Amino acid sequence: MSLHGAYDPDNVFAKILRGELPSVKVWEDDHVLAFMDVFPQSEGHVLIIAKQSKARNLLEVEPDVLAHMTAALQRTARAVEKALSPDGLSIMQFNGDAGGQTVFHLHFHIIPRWADRPMKGHGHAPMADAATLQPLADRIAAALD
Amino acid sequence: MSLHGAYDPDNVFAKILRGELPSVKVWEDDHVLAFMDVFPQSEGHVLIIAKQSKARNLLEVEPDVLAHMTAALQRTARAVEKALSPDGLSIMQFNGDAGGQTVFHLHFHIIPRWADRPMKGHGHAPMADAATLQPLADRIAAALD
Repeated sequence: MSLHGAYDPDNVFAKILRGELPSVKVWEDDHVLAFMDVFPQSEGHVLIIAKQSKARNLLEVEPDVLAHMTAALQRTARAVEKALSPDGLSIMQFNGDAGGQTVFHLHFHIIPRWADRPMKGHGHAPMADAATLQPLADRIAAALD
Repeated sequence: MSLHGAYDPDNVFAKILRGELPSVKVWEDDHVLAFMDVFPQSEGHVLIIAKQSKARNLLEVEPDVLAHMTAALQRTARAVEKALSPDGLSIMQFNGDAGGQTVFHLHFHIIPRWADRPMKGHGHAPMADAATLQPLADRIAAALD
């Protein structure tokens, strides 16, 4: 999918937001949902999405939605750092499949990094099950300010 | 450098902001500066930094500064797309050297992507000269809304 085109209401994140697919939630409010990436590139990989927007990417998103998302990005990154004590954090946001995007509902990746552990490639990480992700989500949620 | 520690006032971006080092500017306002990455991972690689903040990373940045930065990120990404017509855009923001950070003044990367051109690795791209970067900066600036 290019940078331009229609929003697909049957993308995976839209289905998660409608409760048609499960997710391991970290936290949510009226505007955003933070949940565990089911293909984690490292331990504690979290995604931030907006609930009300049909933006596929950064180019399309409404300014107020972007502001809610980036505030949530910071809040969640701080909790990930507090909970998991990574050596670093990589934030990634992909637009268009040439840009690395695989789900066409705008999202930010929070990827904890450790100096002695390589990050798995985007789209090349094995699927994690809820039993693995839930304890991580619980630790991150407990560290939220 | 880890995620925690003091801001180094002699980092490269602080020197650019003080005019002690040159940069190829795309645009600026009272809050932010958008300029060409001198080690471009692809043609049209732009950085967004805040002018007034001493935040080293996403964890430290003041909420209003982050809001200005991400609004500028979107505005600049739209102009890059309009000016250069990439197939995609990758947004990256690195925290701590384990997270990929090399300059410890908070910054967002806007990296245009083309399906038929591989992105160069962060920290592995050759240095570009101003004569190469200035025409790209001019085209992006001309496409700003």
